[in-house]
Amino acid sequence: MEEKLFDYLSKYIEMTDEEKKAITDLTIFRKYKKGTILLKEGQYSDTCYFVIKGCLRCYYIIDGEEKTTAFYTESESLNPLCTVNGQRSEHFVACVEDSILVVSNAEMEEIIFRKFPRFETLCRILCEELLAKSRAEFDEFKTSSPEQRYLNLLQSRPDLLQRVPQYQLASFLGITAQSLSRMRNRIMVESSHNAA
Amino acid sequence: MEEKLFDYLSKYIEMTDEEKKAITDLTIFRKYKKGTILLKEGQYSDTCYFVIKGCLRCYYIIDGEEKTTAFYTESESLNPLCTVNGQRSEHFVACVEDSILVVSNAEMEEIIFRKFPRFETLCRILCEELLAKSRAEFDEFKTSSPEQRYLNLLQSRPDLLQRVPQYQLASFLGITAQSLSRMRNRIMVESSHNAA
Repeated sequence: MEEKLFDYLSKYIEMTDEEKKAITDLTIFRKYKKGTILLKEGQYSDTCYFVIKGCLRCYYIIDGEEKTTAFYTESESLNPLCTVNGQRSEHFVACVEDSILVVSNAEMEEIIFRKFPRFETLCRILCEELLAKSRAEFDEFKTSSPEQRYLNLLQSRPDLLQRVPQYQLASFLGITAQSLSRMRNRIMVESSHNAA
Repeated sequence: MEEKLFDYLSKYIEMTDEEKKAITDLTIFRKYKKGTILLKEGQYSDTCYFVIKGCLRCYYIIDGEEKTTAFYTESESLNPLCTVNGQRSEHFVACVEDSILVVSNAEMEEIIFRKFPRFETLCRILCEELLAKSRAEFDEFKTSSPEQRYLNLLQSRPDLLQRVPQYQLASFLGITAQSLSRMRNRIMVESSHNAA
């Protein structure tokens, strides 16, 4: 399990055996069954997640209806807003699949940063990247039609379309399940016409 | 000008005179006239901005039409995606008002971080906050109707409604200028009925 995390980090820094051992010693790897709810609306939490294997889903319940806003898969991390503002969570986090996660909090991060300051540099750089990407994704959502969003997803995260239920995907794209189904059929018909 | 930046940073750390001097010495403060374009689509750039005074706007030109996706006002920072992925920018950044900005890049940050490592800690913490907030704003956009988005903005950033042109605000809210105008009129009529 550790190897997947080290592989990811090695894109940014070459890690020493001592650094690897310090991370392994924290025993931050956890396995969760599909359907496990990691965070509920109204809860306080300081826990952050990095996905080694599996898929997390962030969703809200509004007027009794689930609204899925984000999915996190391999090598993606999730720091819920409640971990930085100290308030109750407004959303849920659940495992869409059986998942292996790195589970950490600010206290554990500080232990590592104090011992290995360059990990803090790494975290800052990763976080700056994630922030810029998150804003660009938001921009893309604002400037695209639902059909364009679906086609972009087909390009950028094709695996997601197979991994998550259609009603969650629809809500993630900002449309109804019926619209998504009609759109998929139309796109399939068009692409078979183009192929003929 | 420096004082505004130091005021903001002092919410997180007490700064020494030496630290303040090091930042002042970098002469990172710049004044720009309303309408100045700081970044164009297709350009490479490594420049990041922190708003001391004024307002920046991020927008795309799609099929000949401007699509505004974000505004940055006092004490907000903008690291365009091109500064982290090294590719050409897909969007524009312009000054909506006469603005005073902190203008920096990774190289200047590194000089400061090497001299004062706790600034790196500060930047990491700020960035984690911004990332969580950015994702929460994205969630809010996905789970709200245009009218709710407008009412939320009225609550969270009432100044923005006075500061930016209506067509930019409409696009920022994901609606047409006509829809925004109709919505504003309806809300005004409703609130005057409620007040009566």
